Amino acid sequence: METLFSKIISGEIPSYKVAENNLCFAFLDINPNTRGHVLCVPKKIVDKLFDLPEKEYLELMSFSRRVALAIKKVIPCNRVAMSVIGLEVAHAHVHLIPLNEMDDIRFNKKVSISPEEMKEIAVSISSYFKS
Amino acid sequence: METLFSKIISGEIPSYKVAENNLCFAFLDINPNTRGHVLCVPKKIVDKLFDLPEKEYLELMSFSRRVALAIKKVIPCNRVAMSVIGLEVAHAHVHLIPLNEMDDIRFNKKVSISPEEMKEIAVSISSYFKS
Repeated sequence: METLFSKIISGEIPSYKVAENNLCFAFLDINPNTRGHVLCVPKKIVDKLFDLPEKEYLELMSFSRRVALAIKKVIPCNRVAMSVIGLEVAHAHVHLIPLNEMDDIRFNKKVSISPEEMKEIAVSISSYFKS
Repeated sequence: METLFSKIISGEIPSYKVAENNLCFAFLDINPNTRGHVLCVPKKIVDKLFDLPEKEYLELMSFSRRVALAIKKVIPCNRVAMSVIGLEVAHAHVHLIPLNEMDDIRFNKKVSISPEEMKEIAVSISSYFKS
């Protein structure tokens, strides 16, 4: 069954793409907690992160680490936080969130960013991603 | 330099231990968001998760996955969430939180659990951990 994220991966729904390999895809969260908030998803559709087979789970974690290191090069922040919740979209996804304070990770506070700036952020992070 | 967590790992500060291998240590969060909230930490002291070398990062992620699968066997919940923030203790740590609603992951709401029940939860999760 398709999900919002599988439609983003296939390009049916447009996104600000940040990185991709044969197993994983990363793009900017369209409703970001902070500037540079990225989602990393496995191309395989699995609802719950820990239901991924270990090898695919570790591929996603390795991919997410490399995306996080690229985010840190672009976005000034204390650190990049990671969060996997998954109550809204039934397709496992890793939130990578440039963090300065606890409120940045609570998903209450959102920031508004223009399409032009979203594109610029995605291109910048992408340029630092080491595949 | 020692941290709160390195003192827990060495046993200088007591904890409700859940799992341990040569690189990682897991114990119940003493101020849990929900019943069964566990912290997984690398024995090596590194402040930021993504500053761990890739191999040690993946060891911690693999360990955390196995702890999460054990939590899921013991604690009834929608799923086990994962969160890495790190603004309070400068020793990288993975929160594993039995989740039913968004508030469970916001670190605002805390639950009170007796020492007897904490011990029981730790022993139960530990019994399902596959090293």
